[in-house]
Amino acid sequence: MKSRFASLPLDVARRELLARAKPLDGSERLAVEEALDRVTAAAIFARTSVPHYCGAAMDGIAIRAADTAGASEADPITFERGDPAEVARPFSYIDTGNALPSWADAVVMIEKVYAGPARASSSGSEPVRTPSPELPDVVHVRTAAPAWQHVRMIGEDVVASDGIVPRGHRLRPFDVGALLAAGVTEVDVRPRPVVAILPTGDELIEPGEELRPGRIVEFNSRMIASFVRSWGGEAVRLDPARDDLATLGARIERARDDADVVCLIAGSSAGRRDFTVDALASVGRILAHGVDVVPGRPAIVAAFDEASHRARVALGIPGYPVSAVVICLELLAPLVAHLLGTSAPERPTLRAVVPHDLPSKRGNEELIRVQLGRVGDRLVAVPLGRGAGAITTVVRADGLVRVPATADGIAGGEAVDVELLRPIGEVLGTIIVIGSQDPCLAVLEDVLRAAHPQYKLATSWSGDTEALGALERGEAHVAAVTAPVSPDGDERELRVPRGARVVHVAVRSQGLIVPRGNPLGLETLSDLRGRRVHYVARRWQGGAPTTGDPDIGSAREALVHTAVAEAVRSGLADAGIGVAAAAAALGLDFVPLEIEDYDLVLREDFAASDGGKALLAALRSDGFRARLAVLGGYDDRSSGVEKALTPASAT
Amino acid sequence: MKSRFASLPLDVARRELLARAKPLDGSERLAVEEALDRVTAAAIFARTSVPHYCGAAMDGIAIRAADTAGASEADPITFERGDPAEVARPFSYIDTGNALPSWADAVVMIEKVYAGPARASSSGSEPVRTPSPELPDVVHVRTAAPAWQHVRMIGEDVVASDGIVPRGHRLRPFDVGALLAAGVTEVDVRPRPVVAILPTGDELIEPGEELRPGRIVEFNSRMIASFVRSWGGEAVRLDPARDDLATLGARIERARDDADVVCLIAGSSAGRRDFTVDALASVGRILAHGVDVVPGRPAIVAAFDEASHRARVALGIPGYPVSAVVICLELLAPLVAHLLGTSAPERPTLRAVVPHDLPSKRGNEELIRVQLGRVGDRLVAVPLGRGAGAITTVVRADGLVRVPATADGIAGGEAVDVELLRPIGEVLGTIIVIGSQDPCLAVLEDVLRAAHPQYKLATSWSGDTEALGALERGEAHVAAVTAPVSPDGDERELRVPRGARVVHVAVRSQGLIVPRGNPLGLETLSDLRGRRVHYVARRWQGGAPTTGDPDIGSAREALVHTAVAEAVRSGLADAGIGVAAAAAALGLDFVPLEIEDYDLVLREDFAASDGGKALLAALRSDGFRARLAVLGGYDDRSSGVEKALTPASAT
Repeated sequence: MKSRFASLPLDVARRELLARAKPLDGSERLAVEEALDRVTAAAIFARTSVPHYCGAAMDGIAIRAADTAGASEADPITFERGDPAEVARPFSYIDTGNALPSWADAVVMIEKVYAGPARASSSGSEPVRTPSPELPDVVHVRTAAPAWQHVRMIGEDVVASDGIVPRGHRLRPFDVGALLAAGVTEVDVRPRPVVAILPTGDELIEPGEELRPGRIVEFNSRMIASFVRSWGGEAVRLDPARDDLATLGARIERARDDADVVCLIAGSSAGRRDFTVDALASVGRILAHGVDVVPGRPAIVAAFDEASHRARVALGIPGYPVSAVVICLELLAPLVAHLLGTSAPERPTLRAVVPHDLPSKRGNEELIRVQLGRVGDRLVAVPLGRGAGAITTVVRADGLVRVPATADGIAGGEAVDVELLRPIGEVLGTIIVIGSQDPCLAVLEDVLRAAHPQYKLATSWSGDTEALGALERGEAHVAAVTAPVSPDGDERELRVPRGARVVHVAVRSQGLIVPRGNPLGLETLSDLRGRRVHYVARRWQGGAPTTGDPDIGSAREALVHTAVAEAVRSGLADAGIGVAAAAAALGLDFVPLEIEDYDLVLREDFAASDGGKALLAALRSDGFRARLAVLGGYDDRSSGVEKALTPASAT
Repeated sequence: MKSRFASLPLDVARRELLARAKPLDGSERLAVEEALDRVTAAAIFARTSVPHYCGAAMDGIAIRAADTAGASEADPITFERGDPAEVARPFSYIDTGNALPSWADAVVMIEKVYAGPARASSSGSEPVRTPSPELPDVVHVRTAAPAWQHVRMIGEDVVASDGIVPRGHRLRPFDVGALLAAGVTEVDVRPRPVVAILPTGDELIEPGEELRPGRIVEFNSRMIASFVRSWGGEAVRLDPARDDLATLGARIERARDDADVVCLIAGSSAGRRDFTVDALASVGRILAHGVDVVPGRPAIVAAFDEASHRARVALGIPGYPVSAVVICLELLAPLVAHLLGTSAPERPTLRAVVPHDLPSKRGNEELIRVQLGRVGDRLVAVPLGRGAGAITTVVRADGLVRVPATADGIAGGEAVDVELLRPIGEVLGTIIVIGSQDPCLAVLEDVLRAAHPQYKLATSWSGDTEALGALERGEAHVAAVTAPVSPDGDERELRVPRGARVVHVAVRSQGLIVPRGNPLGLETLSDLRGRRVHYVARRWQGGAPTTGDPDIGSAREALVHTAVAEAVRSGLADAGIGVAAAAAALGLDFVPLEIEDYDLVLREDFAASDGGKALLAALRSDGFRARLAVLGGYDDRSSGVEKALTPASAT
């Protein structure tokens, strides 16, 4: 349905939004040590010089440089402890950082100060040692010292009135140190921009409230509030507004007088989105209804009359959580930075290769979630699901690949910049696993991370053949398989890359996941046939019915064992194929049909790496066996045992 | 002086430290929305599936897929509003996100639902529009719908019992969203490691206390505390300990029972460092006295008997602030991460070219502070001062270049990884200025950043010739000069790179900076001669005395105008050469001697860039002129005017 307002390209929408919001006036005065991560409202200048006095840069003696003129190994010059009023050539002991006496202008380091006979050739002459109970009162110097030798001059680091940090600068720990060192004890920082977040919708319930079909947990406002706080803003979550145009308009009007930005969270339906835009239009001006970015398209950008309200802009944030994340990153983050008078945070990038074609619709900028893994000598970006509703794909993503609106995708093999969503160290510790899904992999990861928190598993599910192909092409570190494998492959065995190592995880039990009590009394696969059962299939070697089977009432397919179990638990299906652990996790019954080996195939280079060794150690640990026992349905007697591969035929 | 304990290479010291400190046991239970940036104590699994019901993925009508069998443009199928108990082919209107009625298993999007005559060929047939006051009760569908079309299935994103985030994971805003979506309202996070920070030394005073020679503001503990907080630890700053061995031992003993890590801040003298190590040795075991990293060498790593104390390790942090920063980054950060059971934060890196040889002493790893700037098509790393005392060099640095202990430096022209100390966006906005120093550049930067917070100036000071050389070689964007220039250069003019643009900043007044009241009655340069005056020289074309001048009582050189002024203010010098603004900043008197043009030379490519345009706009702004007037001593009549260069002679 066409909106009566125009949509805008992402960069234009951002420009319009920022042009209407001005950096906040005013400032807040804070003690420097409380100002970490705050943004300076003005350049800050040193109040005192650093150092603020002339001090020793070495442990030694303070002297007058002129008194050392002509000193040499052969002609040492003798100094007496005291000051110029008392002795001819005075010295005093001084430690690094101590103030130079007012009469002194140089330091001789203690290693070059001699006690005993003056001349080097004389026996018994030795450097003075400090600290020492008995420091001599007469010492000798054998080299002439230039004026200001080993002296830290006043203002050597910074001079009073010099700039320390500029305006619009986010204070880091060493800025705190430098400011305090330069006599600055209080700083003026920008006020935190206040962002009001107003969810809308009759269907919303609070976290922890009873879930009923059609009810949605109101988590978006908490997520957006967390974003705002992480950027240095102040988030005010408002109670959800009901679906009533007049009420919503009034709520927006109140929010714009109490905050610097108003964010409305619209629902995910087109009707709701129209409703939100109408409410915004009734109290402000719509700059964009729709932003040409995917996910995120249904965003709204609106402005308020600047003279009369505190907030000058409002954002309509889509209800689908991934769309909400994109709009937060692409519009709200730069807006908060702009209000703080600083530049927007940029995500670090890594260059990675996209293994397959990634088509994208022209006309919209698209942000594609990817997982990254360093396989062999290249970094590979494996795309995740692209649905706007799947918030966990953002959690699992290492970064985002941006496809410009002018492109119709990215060609396989192309290198792209990936904007990171987690620290680089974590990204480079990603172990990419592809293949047959099993709940025990989550447990394996947990055991791995307990010992080596720098590694994580990035999993995606496929058939064995596809998984081994990805391994061969360097798109994964590990393939999880149930079929027998060999380096050559034949009718009975799948081919693995040369040098790969096959390690047994466990023997697992596949069977029928059925409701508790097994109401249909299913005992074998043939019990499924000829009855109107709703059934969930999985790709499996065990000869179970597939989705096309005309003998089955209705069938659909799932990739993940727990998804099969969830279909049974929720009553959408009467039975499905899966492992015992998935039935146990959701409290269902299980009819075992067959056992099979569940194995990991590791690329040779990965198996030899630190990450590979850590993964194998986790697989062979007692902790992993103990956790398998808790999951249930596994035979762990050979867990961690490496399988000998059929020797490759000589070629 | 040799220590009785051995020093260790940095990586060995880190390994020893981490081997003795175990990740903290126990956990803290927090509401998910309060857990941003905290580290998970265990893997977190979904409590409910997402979605938790079958819902519409489109606005439209809910139907039974089987009822659409055979529907086509020519043979539409008609549905009636209601449920299967009331009508033969029931439908109900449904919006995205709404729960599917229990009898339905598919959604037809509203754009494919027709009212009026059933057949497409009939006039008056049109898609139903929502929202609408009058939704028809009879509609037609012209395409068969497969089961589950446009339905978001239960568990499509995540299934109850699936893992959401692993253990040892720092929670991000979208993790908060995903956890709440999956029914998780509370999470167990690692307790914050408590780091006790104990400064030592009789010379320490609190920020704001009266500064006397030899007194040092105790800022290191505040800086270290800020670091600890930024990594997710809890910092406890203890009152400084006096220089007394027994007291210090007792203070350490108390601290190790109240904290997970004890940090002692030693002074900068060798004597104090010995003292600190003795105190640590009296209550624990020294693992390393000295770590082979520069700055940072005097660090101490110690361990406590693990059975009886809360803290298992202690760090002796050097008193020189840059050494302290390095030990924080290299040892304390990984330690805090290890206690949290997560991996250490890594600094993003950028690859940059080192313009000149950077020698470094073999045997120590060295971290060299650099400023980065993209000049032309390459990123250049310009080294900053290497002193351990100059905390402002860390503030000014964009990053650190690491020279391994096995190398004796980095060759000029080599590309290196620079570990960033500020966000990449800020780094890439750096404008490198080299040449003649003037206080007005700080003001220019402030005016620039008020309009364009993404840019900052990185300044270093040199003579005009050296500055223009750096510009030519692509090591700077801008040269700040006082000499006349031309594209060719001759006896009177310095050569600028071809295409460079020369823009006038102001006419400035150079002269003698003298104490208030001008006690020596200096009026001209010749008044300096033949008297025992202490004098500070600057490289200047004006014919002032230099450091070697035999006619002057004593002379030294300073690069920065305010450093000249500080020498005069503190009584170290009777007079010095500088600009009027520097005298005014420190409240001194000024004897004008000569005026000179202060100009900026911009590389052609930089002048054409956004940053160059922004800099020129700042230079030409009224705001800049107003600020020049406040500084004093500038003639701004031609500020911002571009100077025509003598045409290059034809070659």
